[in-house]
Amino acid sequence: MSELSLIEKIKSVVNQSPAVITGIGDDTAILERPAGPLLFAADMLMDGTHFKLSEIAPELAGRKALAVNLSDIAAMAGTPLAVTVSLAIPKNMNEKVSLAVMHGLNELACQFGVAVCGGDTNVWDHPFVIGVTIIGAAHPKGSVLRSGAKAGDHIFVTGPLGGTISGKHLSFVPRVREATWLKEHYALNSMIDLSDGLAKDLRHILEQSQRGAVLSEDQIPRNDNCSLENAMCGGEDFELCFTLPASESAKLATDQSYPGGRLYKIGIITSEPGLRFADGRSVLWHGYEHGINPVMKETST
Amino acid sequence: MSELSLIEKIKSVVNQSPAVITGIGDDTAILERPAGPLLFAADMLMDGTHFKLSEIAPELAGRKALAVNLSDIAAMAGTPLAVTVSLAIPKNMNEKVSLAVMHGLNELACQFGVAVCGGDTNVWDHPFVIGVTIIGAAHPKGSVLRSGAKAGDHIFVTGPLGGTISGKHLSFVPRVREATWLKEHYALNSMIDLSDGLAKDLRHILEQSQRGAVLSEDQIPRNDNCSLENAMCGGEDFELCFTLPASESAKLATDQSYPGGRLYKIGIITSEPGLRFADGRSVLWHGYEHGINPVMKETST
Repeated sequence: MSELSLIEKIKSVVNQSPAVITGIGDDTAILERPAGPLLFAADMLMDGTHFKLSEIAPELAGRKALAVNLSDIAAMAGTPLAVTVSLAIPKNMNEKVSLAVMHGLNELACQFGVAVCGGDTNVWDHPFVIGVTIIGAAHPKGSVLRSGAKAGDHIFVTGPLGGTISGKHLSFVPRVREATWLKEHYALNSMIDLSDGLAKDLRHILEQSQRGAVLSEDQIPRNDNCSLENAMCGGEDFELCFTLPASESAKLATDQSYPGGRLYKIGIITSEPGLRFADGRSVLWHGYEHGINPVMKETST
Repeated sequence: MSELSLIEKIKSVVNQSPAVITGIGDDTAILERPAGPLLFAADMLMDGTHFKLSEIAPELAGRKALAVNLSDIAAMAGTPLAVTVSLAIPKNMNEKVSLAVMHGLNELACQFGVAVCGGDTNVWDHPFVIGVTIIGAAHPKGSVLRSGAKAGDHIFVTGPLGGTISGKHLSFVPRVREATWLKEHYALNSMIDLSDGLAKDLRHILEQSQRGAVLSEDQIPRNDNCSLENAMCGGEDFELCFTLPASESAKLATDQSYPGGRLYKIGIITSEPGLRFADGRSVLWHGYEHGINPVMKETST
């Protein structure tokens, strides 16, 4: 496989955007000056850990590599602008597989208006690695941090949790549109995307906001056949978890114009630290350990 | 190894900068709106390909991962601002090694005023991978592309070439300061950094500018004990190759204020395509094949 031809082929398929002055083919891409502060995030996905190329259409691996980055931008209520894509490709892998990965990534890039404007390709004797780095524009009304939760805030998630291993981790639609709509219309105090499970990711909000939370066990939405533990610890849901004042929550409850289907109110932020259920029991689950991914780990049931 | 503790440790050591509004610890970093167009580039380096962790101080691997990105920014005459760093860490690797990699990266980041503001850490059963993505600010007078070379331009390189495998690929100082100085004072028409060897990288300028070049064989500066072939094909020199009009070249020849040591004039851009030596022979070398790196490949002598 000639990598130069791979780069040429990638270049010919990837999404452009008006924000890109110079895309793939120079030492760096050049992008228009953004309208406000810039968002910047990266994820690296490895074959055998985040997906198994031997079991899935390679397009889904590329799609996921971009989707997890889009989810990070969504968690700030930002708008994604452009990505770089770096690949480490096994020597014996057919070039068609790399191109299919890029096609899958690019299809999602087109849907979200994201330019694929640079990156790096390498060949080696080990499994496939794809690193995507994204830049985005902050919401004109500001970014939603993990650190802003206030006592009395209502806690929401944007969809049912758990069971992602059956396929959602490859096919989820990042909640970019929902997040920008929410920030536009409501006074969000904090937000995070659920990559390591609610039990772990909500704790990031609590720790960074120096608050606690009480969860209504029976209000936590679960996907079919999921235990509560799996819903809270399964990880890779890529739904958003956000908090906002009770007054805003009441308004949101009757708002028919939210574009993302159903929202689920699952609990309340407290001034007392810790994560508890409504009956007072502490939540003992801590979500996924970093580096142990649902694709590789037996799901807890 | 707990990855969360690794992230906490990384967070505590990495360079910040006033441009970073929110660094490591939220879903994305938030950066101040840049003053002009944005530069965006990525490189992925793998143990065994771009360095050998078994043979070098791990700090040098981190240093190199950032340095190659800085070199890309230099090649546009830009100013580096911030990076994300993504790691795939072998399960059995001591946490100290990852931290040493980050320390090496961070030391160079401090020297160049670059913020380390996010990334991703993963654990797996395969060799160490580090992906660095950089954003930079374009030069106020514009970026220097590969596509701008004009017939009659003089071709320069910023230092001797070849022999990088003996250590320079790990210790080179990216030519960021030199490039911004050159763009500030001279009408550069094109520029590229020499990562795959002069024979290959100069051809990128020629192809994208639709020009050719004649090289003065005996003017191509070589490091000690390097053959001409090694100087032109060894790769990973990370010097800059740039072109500018003859009138500018004459001025530059007597300019004592250039901050980067000696410059070497090696040839002239021609309207006729192709890459030749002054005696008319075509240059048959094509530099390194992508994916075959001097660290792993016997250097040609």
